[in-house]
Amino acid sequence: MYRSHTCGELRSENIGLEVKLAGWIQSIRKFGSVTFIDLRDRYGITQLVVEEDLEKKPLGREFVLQIIGKVRERSNKNPNISTGEIEIFVSEITVLNKSVTPPFTIQDDTDGGDDLRMKYRYLDLRRNAIKKNIELRYAVNMATRKYLHQNNFLDIETPFLIKSTPEGARDFIVPSRMNAGQFYALPQSPQTFKQLLMVSGYDRYYQIVKCFRDEDLRADRQPEFTQIDCEMSFVEQEDILNMFEGLVKYIFKEVKNIDYSENILKITWDDAMWNYGNDKPDTRFDMKLVNLKFPLHAHPNRKDISHLINKPDFKVFDEAETVIGIVIPGGAEYSRKQTDELTDWVKRPQIGMKGLAFIKVNKDGSIKSSFDKFYNETELKNIADAALASPGDIILIVAGKEELTRKAASELRLLMAEKLNLRNPESFKLLWVVDFPLFEYDADNNRWVARHHPFTAPKPEQIDLMINNNPAIKDPENYLQHPYANIKANAYDLVLNGNEIGGGSIRIYRKELQQKMFDALGMDEKEQHEKFGFLLGAFEYGAPPHGGLAFGFDRLCAIIGGSESIRDFIAFPKNNNGRDVMLDAPAFVDIKQLEELNISIDIQE
Amino acid sequence: MYRSHTCGELRSENIGLEVKLAGWIQSIRKFGSVTFIDLRDRYGITQLVVEEDLEKKPLGREFVLQIIGKVRERSNKNPNISTGEIEIFVSEITVLNKSVTPPFTIQDDTDGGDDLRMKYRYLDLRRNAIKKNIELRYAVNMATRKYLHQNNFLDIETPFLIKSTPEGARDFIVPSRMNAGQFYALPQSPQTFKQLLMVSGYDRYYQIVKCFRDEDLRADRQPEFTQIDCEMSFVEQEDILNMFEGLVKYIFKEVKNIDYSENILKITWDDAMWNYGNDKPDTRFDMKLVNLKFPLHAHPNRKDISHLINKPDFKVFDEAETVIGIVIPGGAEYSRKQTDELTDWVKRPQIGMKGLAFIKVNKDGSIKSSFDKFYNETELKNIADAALASPGDIILIVAGKEELTRKAASELRLLMAEKLNLRNPESFKLLWVVDFPLFEYDADNNRWVARHHPFTAPKPEQIDLMINNNPAIKDPENYLQHPYANIKANAYDLVLNGNEIGGGSIRIYRKELQQKMFDALGMDEKEQHEKFGFLLGAFEYGAPPHGGLAFGFDRLCAIIGGSESIRDFIAFPKNNNGRDVMLDAPAFVDIKQLEELNISIDIQE
Repeated sequence: MYRSHTCGELRSENIGLEVKLAGWIQSIRKFGSVTFIDLRDRYGITQLVVEEDLEKKPLGREFVLQIIGKVRERSNKNPNISTGEIEIFVSEITVLNKSVTPPFTIQDDTDGGDDLRMKYRYLDLRRNAIKKNIELRYAVNMATRKYLHQNNFLDIETPFLIKSTPEGARDFIVPSRMNAGQFYALPQSPQTFKQLLMVSGYDRYYQIVKCFRDEDLRADRQPEFTQIDCEMSFVEQEDILNMFEGLVKYIFKEVKNIDYSENILKITWDDAMWNYGNDKPDTRFDMKLVNLKFPLHAHPNRKDISHLINKPDFKVFDEAETVIGIVIPGGAEYSRKQTDELTDWVKRPQIGMKGLAFIKVNKDGSIKSSFDKFYNETELKNIADAALASPGDIILIVAGKEELTRKAASELRLLMAEKLNLRNPESFKLLWVVDFPLFEYDADNNRWVARHHPFTAPKPEQIDLMINNNPAIKDPENYLQHPYANIKANAYDLVLNGNEIGGGSIRIYRKELQQKMFDALGMDEKEQHEKFGFLLGAFEYGAPPHGGLAFGFDRLCAIIGGSESIRDFIAFPKNNNGRDVMLDAPAFVDIKQLEELNISIDIQE
Repeated sequence: MYRSHTCGELRSENIGLEVKLAGWIQSIRKFGSVTFIDLRDRYGITQLVVEEDLEKKPLGREFVLQIIGKVRERSNKNPNISTGEIEIFVSEITVLNKSVTPPFTIQDDTDGGDDLRMKYRYLDLRRNAIKKNIELRYAVNMATRKYLHQNNFLDIETPFLIKSTPEGARDFIVPSRMNAGQFYALPQSPQTFKQLLMVSGYDRYYQIVKCFRDEDLRADRQPEFTQIDCEMSFVEQEDILNMFEGLVKYIFKEVKNIDYSENILKITWDDAMWNYGNDKPDTRFDMKLVNLKFPLHAHPNRKDISHLINKPDFKVFDEAETVIGIVIPGGAEYSRKQTDELTDWVKRPQIGMKGLAFIKVNKDGSIKSSFDKFYNETELKNIADAALASPGDIILIVAGKEELTRKAASELRLLMAEKLNLRNPESFKLLWVVDFPLFEYDADNNRWVARHHPFTAPKPEQIDLMINNNPAIKDPENYLQHPYANIKANAYDLVLNGNEIGGGSIRIYRKELQQKMFDALGMDEKEQHEKFGFLLGAFEYGAPPHGGLAFGFDRLCAIIGGSESIRDFIAFPKNNNGRDVMLDAPAFVDIKQLEELNISIDIQE
């Protein structure tokens, strides 16, 4: 062993001890004939005092040293580090390896840009800021395993070389040398395997497992990512929600020492869209949307208040499908400059609104609005009252096409919360969203697509409706009238601070219903058999009721770590073009390799 | 929740309780109006008593039931199962799902053949014989994690989509859609990544991780397999051996409740080859080989006793490169039939010997030999004495080309031990084999190949020899005279019951030495940079001394489970053609998929 202790271990009670340390030079400072070295390893930093003449042994940042020396009290204590009470008076110093000057500083605030850091990821990983993320990731991993172990789950490995059944996302495929012309696919998730394990009777399964999707990468998506993948048999939705909110609370306790004891609110997808304009709302703050007008997705149980804004002269509202307001506490004070800035913000191409309307409810009760040419004070006041605005508030209003406007309102809500400091990354708020629509309508092909995936069951009370109706859409114009449009999925998402961290569903476990689902997706019998014959087969031999959930492990770690960037929580991430710039991969391969695999490159124009 | 208890949970203290169970019908027996059902789940079997008329509810094997009933004492107790004291008097029975008749019986001794079991793997996994393997695998997994966690190791995930650097085995490759004409490779192991993590300062790393090798599959090899992959910094060989024999002992204790307290013997590769004819000897028994004659791989410290058999008339020995004997206790009693059978066995093509010679040392001290035409009794006695044979023993002798003969002797040793019941799968014997040759000679290309891998360091005292000599082999005939032929690796294998369960090495951590290694393997500077530029780069920035080890997780589990077949310890294995017969993968894919990936199928003649 090259060391007797780590660089984070020695304390004042070790004073007088002769020790051997090994680590990296974080910094060197010379004072006359004495040299002070901060020696760093994974566990911390220890100050070394060297009186030896180092002329013949030139040292530099990131050199690897082994030293022998005696622990002594430090005159100039450093309360910021755990070893700050002591230093090592060095008697012997060995350079285990040299280092050229690193391309960026190994500091929390490094001077290295993103590209440089990725190219030299092995140096970037030395920085404390990244190291604590990697350690946090491990802590979440272990907490997950402990909890699931205590609850009788088995970690069972599922294969990586499987069959391509593209549904939604693209598969990565792998040519088979031994089966010429054929390909494996890398799993987008172990979905069908975990269901087979339920059929096999392993009633509680989990895996922390890599999954692969060949998608065009948006910022913060990775072609390979990690899931906490779970499945249970003989359960209903409520059992799954209980089990996995338990898991997240356990992780909070183990990793962050946070007692998340409050009940986790459960809201329907309809309510989420109505109140927040999206299905993963940040509920650390309230600021619900005010739906002043809506065309299609009227909420089944909410009152239509569109008469309040109904005014043919005001085209902005009159010609809009959807009009949504948000009450911002204290916003009545906003200056012209501030409202102009917000207007510019919603007009950015990413948001795409034509403008921003507002009503200010002044502290004295008077009303001021950007559209008071069209509405008298009573009318404005009625709108403000319906929106539950208080004196001092502003109501920001967006109007336009439904989907775009909902999204804009949702984004605006987050922006305003940011400005009001309501999105503290160290504060955590969980939320279940349930009762998603089972299907979405695919206008291009005039058929249904599964909103979650084709294995999700409808609500138990809607199974008959699904089985007894023909999924074909005879009247595309009125697809919303088709009975399938109203089927809700027995599915659930877990949302943390406005991010979907996990999602799942109760699964179909009867062959007849699964076939009906495949029918609805436009798969004929032959295709069903080719792609999912094994699953339909398994359902013939006594499949139990089952359901599950998968967490996006990278994102879960990032959010618990107080960040929204998953890349800093992955040891060796890829960039937005799916490249590993450190390895310089992907890369061209030897023609002989391709020949053995019976493929050739054939670049499409 | 569909159940209040599992089928393995109820005991006599639960008598009188109303319970809800769910599970599969293992068997049904009718006695008049009463039906007895064995209901099975992952946890066990519980007997149900149904008095309801089941005429209208036809049940069968593997149906999924939910029942409500009362626990009562069983009149006819079954001491073989944990719930054998009780039964459930059923008041309500619900068929959750039906089953058609399974293609084989769900029993420990099933009537299903291998192919059928693989096709219906989801049914095969229901069998208790397989279930206990999957559970054992999980237990080994958790014990591994617990031990490594206690020892400060971090589980850090490394990427699956990496760069192809074929060395030895073939890579599986993955076409990149976003980088036309380029390919990722799937990792054969996370070797270089774990070394980079050491460079990054994460001084104790582990992962239980899938690895991929596109090799022609021998029996019991899988294209995807699992490793326990570990690496440590600031360590020497001894530190690693201590850490990981600790791990295996911990696994024995946790999983099998075996106290493996004895020290693990450590032998050199030279000794292993000398004494057992192979580098992964089964040391549950002794029966060392007797090296009567050897040409090339003379052991450095062993006496040459070839004069004992030196007799030009006896061509079998005289023309052989190598002659090896094995003393079999009690073998003097073998009949002619028995020695003939053994002769046939060594003459099989898999072994490839021309025959088997023997010397019997009879209980009365007399000697009988298959070749006593050529040797007088004293000569035979001298051989027997040198072999340390006792009265009653037989010495079996094989002779021929060195490599083949060693292998034959090694196989014969295992066969004889098998016959003598010395290979009890429930008895465990660990062994370290160390000091492997660093290089093997590649006659086809007249260059060196790395015996372990190109990152393995030579013994510290041989580093200078390696750096100061040119690896080029000027005189191929006498390659054994080249200084590189004598370099030993700082490498080690852990052997359990004659199987290599783990192996590793101290790594090269200086750029100069790593380049010398690549030179020796015939890689020019350009190729070194293209393939391993990132690693050589990392070694410039302060790489610490480090080393590691990887366990073959599938095999480790199989051996601990008392089996030599890894397939029964993998939930969804592939067959010997690399096919998943359940999924029917690999398979042909849509031409559109290939077009997007810029490849086409081009089957070689």
